Amino acid sequence: MHKKPLILVTNDDGITAPGLRTLINAMKTLGDVIVVAPDSPQSGMGHAITVNSTLHCDKVSKDDAEILEYSCSGTPADCVKLAVHEILDQKPDLCVSGINHGSNSSINVIYSGTMSAAIEAGIEGIPAVGFSLLDFDWDADFSQIESFVKTIASNVIENGLPNGVVLNANFPKLKKEDIKGIKVCRQAKGNWVEEFDKRKSPMGKEYYWLSGEFTNLDKGEDTDIWALENGYISVVPCQFDLTAHHFIQHLNTWQLND
Amino acid sequence: MHKKPLILVTNDDGITAPGLRTLINAMKTLGDVIVVAPDSPQSGMGHAITVNSTLHCDKVSKDDAEILEYSCSGTPADCVKLAVHEILDQKPDLCVSGINHGSNSSINVIYSGTMSAAIEAGIEGIPAVGFSLLDFDWDADFSQIESFVKTIASNVIENGLPNGVVLNANFPKLKKEDIKGIKVCRQAKGNWVEEFDKRKSPMGKEYYWLSGEFTNLDKGEDTDIWALENGYISVVPCQFDLTAHHFIQHLNTWQLND
Repeated sequence: MHKKPLILVTNDDGITAPGLRTLINAMKTLGDVIVVAPDSPQSGMGHAITVNSTLHCDKVSKDDAEILEYSCSGTPADCVKLAVHEILDQKPDLCVSGINHGSNSSINVIYSGTMSAAIEAGIEGIPAVGFSLLDFDWDADFSQIESFVKTIASNVIENGLPNGVVLNANFPKLKKEDIKGIKVCRQAKGNWVEEFDKRKSPMGKEYYWLSGEFTNLDKGEDTDIWALENGYISVVPCQFDLTAHHFIQHLNTWQLND
Repeated sequence: MHKKPLILVTNDDGITAPGLRTLINAMKTLGDVIVVAPDSPQSGMGHAITVNSTLHCDKVSKDDAEILEYSCSGTPADCVKLAVHEILDQKPDLCVSGINHGSNSSINVIYSGTMSAAIEAGIEGIPAVGFSLLDFDWDADFSQIESFVKTIASNVIENGLPNGVVLNANFPKLKKEDIKGIKVCRQAKGNWVEEFDKRKSPMGKEYYWLSGEFTNLDKGEDTDIWALENGYISVVPCQFDLTAHHFIQHLNTWQLND
């Protein structure tokens, strides 16, 4: 008899987020689930960790609850570290993060708390996936994508992932029957063109809100942006070896030691 | 006559950090310098950006000061965004971040506020370098490495960097005469083995401090860790296309659309 896989579930929108609830429900059908999630929204936290202050972590589920849930004061990456090194006594077989309320395609992966949790799990040697739905609405309809989430996660459980690779899955805001399928992609080149919304406080002091518009700089049809704009779910394999290996040879021609 | 390059200087240890002062002094000899740095330490912030709260940014230098300096309430990535889109009216020719008090070699690049500023500049199309000295001491002796910092920065001004690539430079804690030179490297495979320091508050509530030990999992002699342990300065070209291109072909053999 196969032992059920142990699945660690986390996110960056916080433990009360509807996207997390959908992910828990989907994972319950695949294995034993434990939830360690931030106690407050952590969007845009990138791969932040808490080094200069303390962390709190509280069990929030009842002792007889079907699923163990912990609420932590830190970032998504902190949650994974706490789960693996403090809460769990065995390494999870899978870590899933999300479902994020909003896109983590293209360059958004860099700013993503959702993906930082998946990457942190990957660094720990745990197969991991981040899930994001292109709908910022708190009441987004996650039920449309639940079966696809299960398909991706069960494929990861079945096949494993090589060391140093985690998956970034993004879902278009479409009805289930209008989704054309799952497409393996590369990260589209793109950036945010920022516009700071400059305001004045009641005391007359200037302050800013970060805003701006995402610009796709990539015409490729093998990118996550293309897939999402054309009705597909995008799955990008991501690595955390940031070395630009292709540039090493050229860099060695520079006059760095004269 | 060549126009002097415009150099944006930032860091993650905050505007008062000695490492930032050394970097400013070094850059003054290469171009026109503007400083936009966090008002407080931002270590471990990864690529965090401020999306759910406001940003403040104050000019802290005198009008007749040689160098314009701004202090910002946000993260290192916020500082670069504010500098480029709000403070400056031309794109800088170079962005330098640091000098960090501590290492950003190996997997530390993922957690690094210093490198997130350089990467943010890279995303904006600005040649960028993050500098870090392997000495956590606030009073570390940055003068030993100032000439090497200049060499690396002037090479970047001279040669430029391709789109999508920024440099991560780390310096061993050695006297200038004991440094063997600058070595182009790849990011060593490694991770942190966490140990949470569990304590009790005066009210009896448990809390944690994140601690742990870095483990080098890489025996290669072409890594940043090897270089630093053997008396060299490491320079790793880094990219922010996280796609694990080598795994795309295999991922396409998975049963994702059955």
